[in-house]
Amino acid sequence: MGAAFDDQLITDVATVVSTEARAFNNGGRAGLDYWTPNINPFKDPRWGRGQETPGEDPFHLSSYVHALIDGLQGGFDPKYKRIVATCKHFAAYDLESWNGNFRYQFDARVDSQDLREYYMPPFQTCARDSNVGSVMCSYNSLNGVPTCADPYLLQTILREHWGWTNEQQYVTSDCDSIQNIYTPHNYTRTRAEAVTAALVAGTDLNCGTYYQQHLPTAYAQGLFNESTLDQALIRQYSALVRLGYFDGSAVPYRNISWADVNTPHAQQLAYKAAAEGITLLKNDGTLPMEITSDMTIAIVGDWANATEQMQGNYLGIAPYLHSPLWAAEQTGARVYYARVPGGQGDPTTDDWLSVPLLAEKADAFIYVGGLDNSVEAEGMDRVSIAWTGGQLDVIDQLAGYGKPMIVMQMGGGQLDSSPIANNPNVSALLWGGYPGQDGGVALLDTITGKNSPAGRLPTTQYPANYVSQIPMTDMTLRPNSTTGSPGRTYQWYTGTPIYEFGHGLHYTNFSASIQSSNRSYSISDLMEGCMEKYKDKCAFQTVNVDVENIGSTISDYVTLAFLTGTHGPEPYPNKRLVAYTRLHNMTAGSTSTANLGLTLGSLARIDEQGNTVLYPGDYALMVDTQPLAMKNFTLTGDPVTLDEWPQPPAPQLQTSDYFVGGYGSTYEENVIAGGTT
Amino acid sequence: MGAAFDDQLITDVATVVSTEARAFNNGGRAGLDYWTPNINPFKDPRWGRGQETPGEDPFHLSSYVHALIDGLQGGFDPKYKRIVATCKHFAAYDLESWNGNFRYQFDARVDSQDLREYYMPPFQTCARDSNVGSVMCSYNSLNGVPTCADPYLLQTILREHWGWTNEQQYVTSDCDSIQNIYTPHNYTRTRAEAVTAALVAGTDLNCGTYYQQHLPTAYAQGLFNESTLDQALIRQYSALVRLGYFDGSAVPYRNISWADVNTPHAQQLAYKAAAEGITLLKNDGTLPMEITSDMTIAIVGDWANATEQMQGNYLGIAPYLHSPLWAAEQTGARVYYARVPGGQGDPTTDDWLSVPLLAEKADAFIYVGGLDNSVEAEGMDRVSIAWTGGQLDVIDQLAGYGKPMIVMQMGGGQLDSSPIANNPNVSALLWGGYPGQDGGVALLDTITGKNSPAGRLPTTQYPANYVSQIPMTDMTLRPNSTTGSPGRTYQWYTGTPIYEFGHGLHYTNFSASIQSSNRSYSISDLMEGCMEKYKDKCAFQTVNVDVENIGSTISDYVTLAFLTGTHGPEPYPNKRLVAYTRLHNMTAGSTSTANLGLTLGSLARIDEQGNTVLYPGDYALMVDTQPLAMKNFTLTGDPVTLDEWPQPPAPQLQTSDYFVGGYGSTYEENVIAGGTT
Repeated sequence: MGAAFDDQLITDVATVVSTEARAFNNGGRAGLDYWTPNINPFKDPRWGRGQETPGEDPFHLSSYVHALIDGLQGGFDPKYKRIVATCKHFAAYDLESWNGNFRYQFDARVDSQDLREYYMPPFQTCARDSNVGSVMCSYNSLNGVPTCADPYLLQTILREHWGWTNEQQYVTSDCDSIQNIYTPHNYTRTRAEAVTAALVAGTDLNCGTYYQQHLPTAYAQGLFNESTLDQALIRQYSALVRLGYFDGSAVPYRNISWADVNTPHAQQLAYKAAAEGITLLKNDGTLPMEITSDMTIAIVGDWANATEQMQGNYLGIAPYLHSPLWAAEQTGARVYYARVPGGQGDPTTDDWLSVPLLAEKADAFIYVGGLDNSVEAEGMDRVSIAWTGGQLDVIDQLAGYGKPMIVMQMGGGQLDSSPIANNPNVSALLWGGYPGQDGGVALLDTITGKNSPAGRLPTTQYPANYVSQIPMTDMTLRPNSTTGSPGRTYQWYTGTPIYEFGHGLHYTNFSASIQSSNRSYSISDLMEGCMEKYKDKCAFQTVNVDVENIGSTISDYVTLAFLTGTHGPEPYPNKRLVAYTRLHNMTAGSTSTANLGLTLGSLARIDEQGNTVLYPGDYALMVDTQPLAMKNFTLTGDPVTLDEWPQPPAPQLQTSDYFVGGYGSTYEENVIAGGTT
Repeated sequence: MGAAFDDQLITDVATVVSTEARAFNNGGRAGLDYWTPNINPFKDPRWGRGQETPGEDPFHLSSYVHALIDGLQGGFDPKYKRIVATCKHFAAYDLESWNGNFRYQFDARVDSQDLREYYMPPFQTCARDSNVGSVMCSYNSLNGVPTCADPYLLQTILREHWGWTNEQQYVTSDCDSIQNIYTPHNYTRTRAEAVTAALVAGTDLNCGTYYQQHLPTAYAQGLFNESTLDQALIRQYSALVRLGYFDGSAVPYRNISWADVNTPHAQQLAYKAAAEGITLLKNDGTLPMEITSDMTIAIVGDWANATEQMQGNYLGIAPYLHSPLWAAEQTGARVYYARVPGGQGDPTTDDWLSVPLLAEKADAFIYVGGLDNSVEAEGMDRVSIAWTGGQLDVIDQLAGYGKPMIVMQMGGGQLDSSPIANNPNVSALLWGGYPGQDGGVALLDTITGKNSPAGRLPTTQYPANYVSQIPMTDMTLRPNSTTGSPGRTYQWYTGTPIYEFGHGLHYTNFSASIQSSNRSYSISDLMEGCMEKYKDKCAFQTVNVDVENIGSTISDYVTLAFLTGTHGPEPYPNKRLVAYTRLHNMTAGSTSTANLGLTLGSLARIDEQGNTVLYPGDYALMVDTQPLAMKNFTLTGDPVTLDEWPQPPAPQLQTSDYFVGGYGSTYEENVIAGGTT
């Protein structure tokens, strides 16, 4: 869904989710408080839960999550919320278990610039711009303070700076992150102090038992006032009020029933979500490939017959799970199947003897493999971003037959596919993520051309040795000659990616032109018309881009708009995404117009204090990764601060009642970041 | 079983294993070729398969494996072997998956001194001294050469130097390690060259399919002669001959039937193996603790109701699995149980609310927890050797009630138990490993005193930050100021262990005296009487140690004999184990004599070339870890080489047909060792 770059799709899917949630609630099978979305940026390719997120780019995440909450909650200020969504994990959570660093005790060290620029945008969108009902504080600590016990995060930023102060908005802890404040964070001397620190900081609800077990003791010790407890309860009961919990049949959602679950519309949407996200990375012209009933197809690989595997990390019970093998069989062709080799953790060659047998007989090969939850999952980060030797061996053996050879790279994170990209005998490479219940059909339809691929990579595909250049624990984004960091994400990575963020080929070609000439803008003029409370939201310009399908195949086209140029603090990012929109079903020769709404915030950059500043300088707006069109413009005048970032408190090593353990425990300090050359 | 330090026990257990194996073979359910034992030294506490091995000390492993093969094969030169044992993994295999280093592609860099001194002794014992039927080459490469393709390892050392040349002795590959030669080791240009390299080096049998798939091509290309293939086949068929495969009912083992499986003797032995290995790490006098039917016991922890968990990494179907909870219930006491918290990967506090409820009611607490196969397993190394915060929190909460509090630390590897050792409210700490089908009973019997603990730690219990001081990939044993390594194993570790190798308390006390006075020996005199083919096997002296049980409780006593002193090449190890024996059932006030047979090899040390040398100098023999007795002696004269180690060939970067990839692939080279400060 991240690869689709289609916000309307996200709202549509989220609306189905919240509709089905109401049906389950009406049936007595579920509550109304949902711990979704995971909206932490997918910063490091090893992150096991990166698969749950839309990708690595903060603008992309913000736009996506706005559309998602719209569907989950039923608009941004509904009389009755469909459900309460929960933006998680606040904040700087993107490490599970890596080289002795565990999410439960990891202390993320992030400066204000990186914090505001990279880690905060999706949460700002949730809280400030989307009226999300709940925010979940995370397991990790941030700059020495466990997030669930951090008044700077939960009060100063979340509630005060972002105005997230509706009475029904509440913070929940991640499961047992209150316990983690006591240990392994060792942030307080006692368990009573740990629950007090969380409650006073503004964590209203505890997933776990520490509040139940230890709040009574803390209260008896006079560590907090009854009004503090009342506040947490008022927030939670107010949320029930806004859900219509007390209003009986006056709530229209009470009519949603089992008939509204697994509807034809929902099934079509599941297919569409899979199809829109499939991303074509390489194609020598073999695709689209007609599969006729007189052909013999060999479908091979640890994902070839994937069913539950297609659902990824968190999942419901699907009405069906159409594997790639199943979908191949529906084409009417003769299909041979071999699972070899068995995934990331399994090198066994037991059934490799079948490979030459089926290879001789087949007219074309489809290899479906890659990652799955045995190597990327909640609680489990990857240690390698390379394909296994066994997988590459089978791919190469099949490719050696010189027949059409299509590789589908699966899983949420990226693998270094350079051995496949560089193998001239591999005809095509597609990335399919975790495509869900109809994933096999979407993949096969993409091969045959029934679906034209138009997805884009939402994360950078790094070379395999990237993981040896930067430890997961390094939270910085910018390249750093001292630490040897080559930088993170397409914005800052100084190396050459295997496939870049936003990469995605089509079965046709597109041209684009921008309906706007190059010119100069005065910052003071721009500010004069800016009446928004949050000045970054003031409009700059809607850039209209005319896109033409100059090939012969119908296709969607994702219009990605990147900004580059010399403005604001150095170093400058390579480029940054400021707008995107997906144009649908463009027939051969047709032209559509993408309307890209840019705000002052789109142009602004973040200074070292985390302030959002509109800077004079040169700007260039580029359409697509290999630009199809470009618009240069200049901003003149003095810099203007659009948003003044609240500064973190000075370290309170001796002054806080709760701050005993210092910056993590001694053990935490001793576990080195690891992995740097 | 490693902690029991009881070679007779090992032979007895192995005899049951081979008896039951024959019953299964006669029943048509199993073959006669068994891929056991894993006898690589447990060098790094993180190693996921360390649990399969007897421990970290090479003498201990050698003595243990000699006893084991005796039982598995039915003596050292039987007319008919009971089964073929397989010493694995040859050699220097002790890493699964750590920080981007995978066993399938890891290149172990080991110099000749460490190789002969540490990694080779158990294999020398298997091949040279125990007539093992088979040896398995490993996944890793050693100094640039995949072990299954290494003629230096498989021909020069294994067959020529150790005289492992009986016609029925063969080498098998680890599963798909032949494929790994091609990729990810990238050691050969083609698949045909990979299978040829393995066959010619002396790998007779391939677990996997690469031989079947690619030997025909290699033969057609003229890469090897038919006689080479014949040699591999002759070895395997000869093994069948020695197993009596062709001799029908003339083989006495043909009479073994299902009645010989799961006998009362086997069940008693399973109990004995568990009981003998249980190791008492801490005791404030609470243990032994009578449990009466009018008591209430709370048994808590992720291992409290362990069943399959007790079996570890590889296992058969047990006739029963008596959990600690089950065993506690058999005492007649009222037993409360709570699983909290749920193991290494599970921090949830969901059922913690039960803790104060049962704690109020109980007269004593038994906490059973630690590691399991969710964090240490084949394919999975640990990244932390600390208890989790959740486990320590529950232990501390229970200890806070001031009632008898017994902690059982479970799992194959060690955890830093200093928070438990240092908590004055924890009465006792036991280590129970993976105790098998009757493990719960053995643990409870040890608490009540029905079994007197006499196990000893077979591995060092390091502080938690040890894992940040040395990467798993560092194969060196000695401390190194350049790399920052604090050294490995009790022989070389320069830090202070939490509990040292060999540590183990009793319910009684022992004194010891050595029946031998201090004196000086002439090396030339010693050599004059040495007529053995392998001179390290020549007797030096049998040291008789009188051990007295000076307490009031019957108990076994493990007599450990360490050697220290200034002789041979610097640096000197802290000490080294040269003999051990277990004295059984010593009643209060009784004396038993331990006969410790020392050889010239016991005294010798290894020089930088890997030669085994008897050096002049000062020696001290110490009984036990905190020495109960000591004998000093001196060797005079010139050093004598007892065993001249075959030197490795010079790197053949350009001369070998097969050596294409250099020392591992480029990717392997780029994955840094990681984890050093």
